[in-house]
Amino acid sequence: MSLPDSLAHHLATRFGDRFSRAAVLCEQHGKGEGFYPPAPPDAVVFAQSTEEVSAIVKACAAEGVPIIPFGAGTSLEGHVAALKGGVCVDLSLMTGIVSVAPEDMQATVEPGVTRKQLNAYLRDTGLFFPVDPGAESTLGGMAATRASGTSTVRYGSMRDNIVALEVVLADGSIIRTASRAAKSSAGYDLTRLFTGSEGTLGIITRLTLKLHGIPEAVTSAVAAFPSVAAAVETVTATLQAGLPLARVEFLDEAVMEAVNRFTGLSYRAAPTLFFELHGAPMAIQSQAEDLEAIALDLGGQDFRWTADAEEGNALWAARHKAFYAISSMHPGRQVLSMDSCVPRSRLSECILAAEADIAASSFRGGVVGHVGDGNFHVAVLVDPSDPEQMAEAEAINDRITRRAIAAGGTCTGEHGIGYGRIDFLAEEMGGAVGVMLKIKQALDPQGLFNPGKLFRAP
Amino acid sequence: MSLPDSLAHHLATRFGDRFSRAAVLCEQHGKGEGFYPPAPPDAVVFAQSTEEVSAIVKACAAEGVPIIPFGAGTSLEGHVAALKGGVCVDLSLMTGIVSVAPEDMQATVEPGVTRKQLNAYLRDTGLFFPVDPGAESTLGGMAATRASGTSTVRYGSMRDNIVALEVVLADGSIIRTASRAAKSSAGYDLTRLFTGSEGTLGIITRLTLKLHGIPEAVTSAVAAFPSVAAAVETVTATLQAGLPLARVEFLDEAVMEAVNRFTGLSYRAAPTLFFELHGAPMAIQSQAEDLEAIALDLGGQDFRWTADAEEGNALWAARHKAFYAISSMHPGRQVLSMDSCVPRSRLSECILAAEADIAASSFRGGVVGHVGDGNFHVAVLVDPSDPEQMAEAEAINDRITRRAIAAGGTCTGEHGIGYGRIDFLAEEMGGAVGVMLKIKQALDPQGLFNPGKLFRAP
Repeated sequence: MSLPDSLAHHLATRFGDRFSRAAVLCEQHGKGEGFYPPAPPDAVVFAQSTEEVSAIVKACAAEGVPIIPFGAGTSLEGHVAALKGGVCVDLSLMTGIVSVAPEDMQATVEPGVTRKQLNAYLRDTGLFFPVDPGAESTLGGMAATRASGTSTVRYGSMRDNIVALEVVLADGSIIRTASRAAKSSAGYDLTRLFTGSEGTLGIITRLTLKLHGIPEAVTSAVAAFPSVAAAVETVTATLQAGLPLARVEFLDEAVMEAVNRFTGLSYRAAPTLFFELHGAPMAIQSQAEDLEAIALDLGGQDFRWTADAEEGNALWAARHKAFYAISSMHPGRQVLSMDSCVPRSRLSECILAAEADIAASSFRGGVVGHVGDGNFHVAVLVDPSDPEQMAEAEAINDRITRRAIAAGGTCTGEHGIGYGRIDFLAEEMGGAVGVMLKIKQALDPQGLFNPGKLFRAP
Repeated sequence: MSLPDSLAHHLATRFGDRFSRAAVLCEQHGKGEGFYPPAPPDAVVFAQSTEEVSAIVKACAAEGVPIIPFGAGTSLEGHVAALKGGVCVDLSLMTGIVSVAPEDMQATVEPGVTRKQLNAYLRDTGLFFPVDPGAESTLGGMAATRASGTSTVRYGSMRDNIVALEVVLADGSIIRTASRAAKSSAGYDLTRLFTGSEGTLGIITRLTLKLHGIPEAVTSAVAAFPSVAAAVETVTATLQAGLPLARVEFLDEAVMEAVNRFTGLSYRAAPTLFFELHGAPMAIQSQAEDLEAIALDLGGQDFRWTADAEEGNALWAARHKAFYAISSMHPGRQVLSMDSCVPRSRLSECILAAEADIAASSFRGGVVGHVGDGNFHVAVLVDPSDPEQMAEAEAINDRITRRAIAAGGTCTGEHGIGYGRIDFLAEEMGGAVGVMLKIKQALDPQGLFNPGKLFRAP
């Protein structure tokens, strides 16, 4: 659809040059970092306050025009595609850090703030925000997709680290989902309902986040394993023993080989785990020793650990460079990253099956995993402009995803549904999708918030 | 209302002596442990399976009869009162432990299982379920009220420890709210929506719970403080330092005096903190030393700690006996326990104001707090049969609750809304209650699930 003149006039008058219908800008706002074709909105408005977001929503609702919230555009599943046209509400100018309450270990921020910006701001407080999805996402976007990252095994995902949200609803009204209390039994958990709702229920305009104490010391470790199963068993045994791993990342043999080629380092070409422990020096030294004992017992080799920050970075070099190393596996192609999460007891079989899928395909690729959570990403190198390759990649993705669902897992550990994974959502959740749809219809009866995401547009 | 004959006949035929209209049984099922008058249902059915729950819901829905789920009847805010009559679905016979997956650190249970039963069952696995609300509640009931307890500061509340729920909806259909993956970005977070919904959206018939490793060692500590503020500051500084307190409980001066009188022990009559640390012996020894340094720095006195289980029990004796000690403050009267939770930066002022409220009242009483979460319970000794006393207690409760809300906190940290705190919910949440009501109407259009709770019955 194209924008009604009355609405365009209204928004242009109110927002001046923060309202635009320029094709380049609209193109840019209709595409994330995934391999979906751009679906540009009809216009973009850069909002600077909750009240402005509310005004935009009211104006669009009055004309029945779709509204798509936009942060940094780093989502992977087509979340920002304007499938029905409409107005994109860009929140990237809302970068205010509203307040920090060190005693409460909380910060209240606007949605356009990134994790790095927040952590830079917090540096002198001794506190930090732990959720790290890798991309330079905004915190609003991370809330909207229920993002997680390498430290989720210890600190949780966005689900666990949001105290309260401010949200603009479909009628333009503004609510706060919860108080600032650390816990509450006061009614339905609206904070968690809007977290992960992918812009389909409302627009997040403010977040109160849970902060954590910067650990006094960090210990890093790395070990190679004779098999994927031995690596996963090490993680399981470690967590069962109550050892509070701050991070535990898995790279498979193919990725380790690529790292060696790319960096000139000489890791063993084997399934490898990268660990991090956070805490007081004595406590984490004792934990590192326990960890080493468990790893060696399960066949771990080349176990190395260090409490020195620089040496730790060196130990983790392979993990830090994994993305570029994978990219280098097939120059000229791009990394397509899939996203499954399964109960840990099924993780090694799912990783092995995915490796076999890659081996049987025409692609180079490998597996990287946040194995503490059972989350793994299968990466294959594709030329997105080649439809045959994209179809083959799609078929692999289908197999891996169906296998994860059959193993009691989920079709997306952290990337979200967007519009590319709607069928998987139905396959995974069954009748529960009906409940989601009833909630959608109750809170957005006109279906204007990010239409076509999570559910097919009517 | 009384039960339609056709429904009574239908249920009696299907459930035999697991269906009852006996007055004593109905009375018993119309009252929790709070000070609300009994509101008996018209009948009680003891369900033994999800399919039976579904059949009961379908039969009641067909006749427009209210449905009230019942676990152990330990709730405090009138949650089980059958305000509109109807059928109470007693789930206490559903005590199956369906499966335990040690590698995934998960257990799937029926809703009638209690925390103690589950932990007894898990003993040999090295795992445990941490949420401990004190009462002998069922896990289904704990999920329904989003319960928490003394270890929530480390292990989280029911919000954080449920992986997935099976729920019977208003039309009798059965859904699962999530896969068994440890995290997911697949659609709306229905697990968290039903957790804390107090039986108003569906009946929880199965829970997959997150388990934790039984800590290798436990260190207990106790310290008295010159002021409430010094005690709270100690907790804040400890948590900011990233010291993973497993429990931290506060008893105020009045409660400590009562403990001394009741037990013959001779604690200092002062604001007192009880700590627990969980982990590897070396790690928690180092943490205990750090904790002591922080506590002494903030004026802590009589600091004692031990890694011995029996000595630990002795150190914690005052906390374990607090309820009985408070009861003994005024023989013949009963303990009325209020429930507020505020940002920790406002905690000491709220506790001091509550102590002043007690001092200015006709009651004896004191304050006990899960201070790591900012949660505190003000206890006063009342004769529930004396309307004047109950009115006075109500007025104190109002003041304390309004103060908590004004401080950015919640009207209930862990007890729930039931029907006694509906006005406070509105005061705390404002327009967000409208969102809750829309969800209620969308998922329970006839308004048959636990009517009159969270919202006034239509």
